[in-house]
Amino acid sequence: MKKIGVIGAGSWGTALAITLSNKGHQVKICDVDQAHIAQMKEHRENVKYLPGIKFNDNLTVVDSTEEALKGADIALFSAPAQHFRSAFESAIPFLDDDMVVVNVAKGIEQHTLMRMSEIAYILRPDVKYVVLSGPSHAEEVGRFLPTTVAVASRDIKLAEYIQEVFMTERFRVYTNEDVCGVELGGALKNIIALGAGISDGIGFGDNAKAALMTRGITEMSRLGVKLGANIETFSGLAGVGDLIVTCTSMHSRNRRCGIMIGEGMKPSEATKKVGMVVEGMFTTEAAYELAKQVGVEMPITEAIYDCINDRIDAREAVELLMGRDKKNEMHII
Amino acid sequence: MKKIGVIGAGSWGTALAITLSNKGHQVKICDVDQAHIAQMKEHRENVKYLPGIKFNDNLTVVDSTEEALKGADIALFSAPAQHFRSAFESAIPFLDDDMVVVNVAKGIEQHTLMRMSEIAYILRPDVKYVVLSGPSHAEEVGRFLPTTVAVASRDIKLAEYIQEVFMTERFRVYTNEDVCGVELGGALKNIIALGAGISDGIGFGDNAKAALMTRGITEMSRLGVKLGANIETFSGLAGVGDLIVTCTSMHSRNRRCGIMIGEGMKPSEATKKVGMVVEGMFTTEAAYELAKQVGVEMPITEAIYDCINDRIDAREAVELLMGRDKKNEMHII
Repeated sequence: MKKIGVIGAGSWGTALAITLSNKGHQVKICDVDQAHIAQMKEHRENVKYLPGIKFNDNLTVVDSTEEALKGADIALFSAPAQHFRSAFESAIPFLDDDMVVVNVAKGIEQHTLMRMSEIAYILRPDVKYVVLSGPSHAEEVGRFLPTTVAVASRDIKLAEYIQEVFMTERFRVYTNEDVCGVELGGALKNIIALGAGISDGIGFGDNAKAALMTRGITEMSRLGVKLGANIETFSGLAGVGDLIVTCTSMHSRNRRCGIMIGEGMKPSEATKKVGMVVEGMFTTEAAYELAKQVGVEMPITEAIYDCINDRIDAREAVELLMGRDKKNEMHII
Repeated sequence: MKKIGVIGAGSWGTALAITLSNKGHQVKICDVDQAHIAQMKEHRENVKYLPGIKFNDNLTVVDSTEEALKGADIALFSAPAQHFRSAFESAIPFLDDDMVVVNVAKGIEQHTLMRMSEIAYILRPDVKYVVLSGPSHAEEVGRFLPTTVAVASRDIKLAEYIQEVFMTERFRVYTNEDVCGVELGGALKNIIALGAGISDGIGFGDNAKAALMTRGITEMSRLGVKLGANIETFSGLAGVGDLIVTCTSMHSRNRRCGIMIGEGMKPSEATKKVGMVVEGMFTTEAAYELAKQVGVEMPITEAIYDCINDRIDAREAVELLMGRDKKNEMHII
């Protein structure tokens, strides 16, 4: 059994902490929000983000990153993508040389356009980095419903180690060597989830949404390959798997935000109304910039970019996508 | 404008006849069920399978295949897959040499294990054959909601011709040269739809279903490639696109049948209760046989095969899939 420190007690960090502690690992969880920590200590439950699921005795709520990581074998980062840099920076003094870092944040950093692993390697070049991603609503993992995820690392032995530590009969873990693809799959799918929400909000049906998702995964792959990813990763759990779960479920904030935009709400208002981070808004900007830099055509991303920046309305964006030239499906541009 | 004969007035044949006649083509539609023909003539509407959408003046209901195909440029076959052979056979005397055949049936013929194009080429070796497939619930196409499909032919010029004839601003058509892949995508996805229904019926969540769909498309591709398909087709509209729409919508009979099985009903009863053809039952048998013949591992198909043949119950089937060895996502077996 291992010692695992979890940095960030949102719904996903908590669901993983519960899964790991139920397996028998010694897990400590912390958060930047002290009131949230106090509440979790008192109720032995994450009342705020994952209510109704009690912590067992192997899961300890602690006050700081330092306490969470003291003596740990594994440091699990579950801060939102835009806060990964600061969470990782404050953890660096407490990261032992052979501690394995697992990151579950999905996104691209604003302005720098960096993936999470790029941030980690710059701040700590010898980091033992593993990314975990896939179709995994925290609520369902917390309720022990069957779930599969992918773990990727430059060093496949590290991915296999995390597979061994995390896998249970209800939480199935596949390994992959393509860190770039797994990270981009998890990040870019939020753009398409916004688009799927917009389509639903307008009142379009399953056909339109399936088309958007299919053409969406094509343009995600196209950008990914230019940035060094393996195209097959986008057909896997962290690609199309996560895309499916995000675009078809009301659990997704990105989709919910898109629905409100599709119904005619201003994008800025919709974001405010969702109340939590809508990662897809940042990711759309980032992918738009990256696509320009590397010269890749991403018509869906561009339409959503124009839409969330109030240049066109939601209906125009979809009409634009439907009205393009006749195409051969297999021609990559 | 073209003359088009539609053979088979189910929901999908009717939706296409409406789309084409609205575009200005002269369309004639027939069916083997004479009472159904009479009803459509009387109401100028397909009361039975696509109620609420009136026919326009370019759409004529006729009594026979001969009348439907007289002087036609295009013969559109929309019989169920298990009836394609007989529908095509009875049409052969009326197929002119330069008439283009478009088939929209999705399935594999029982016992012979033949794809629809294989049947057509054997019965009429010089047939000008195009398959049309993709994420396209008839109900939505009938209501002019945005839809995209793929058309494939050995002769890409034929596919481009059909693209030109069928495409509207709400019905977007992509071409593809991979007849085998487009046919198999449309057929095999019904197996996974059964499985998705079973998972939903048991009470599992979005994570489990997304995993099943992702691993499902992987094993569909694996069989497809062995049978001569292009792997990329399975990432396209007729592959993952159709899979998504079928597995996430209540329109799908295959999924509805799976849900009842997941809830504990006997497969034979569930099929009866759906009332219409559950193509996925035949396809599961066919794919199981084909996989054995060409030596491909299809764990999901095997589990569903065992389940619908009462060898294991639904919950066992899913536990079996979740309990397999640790895997690398990218290893094809």
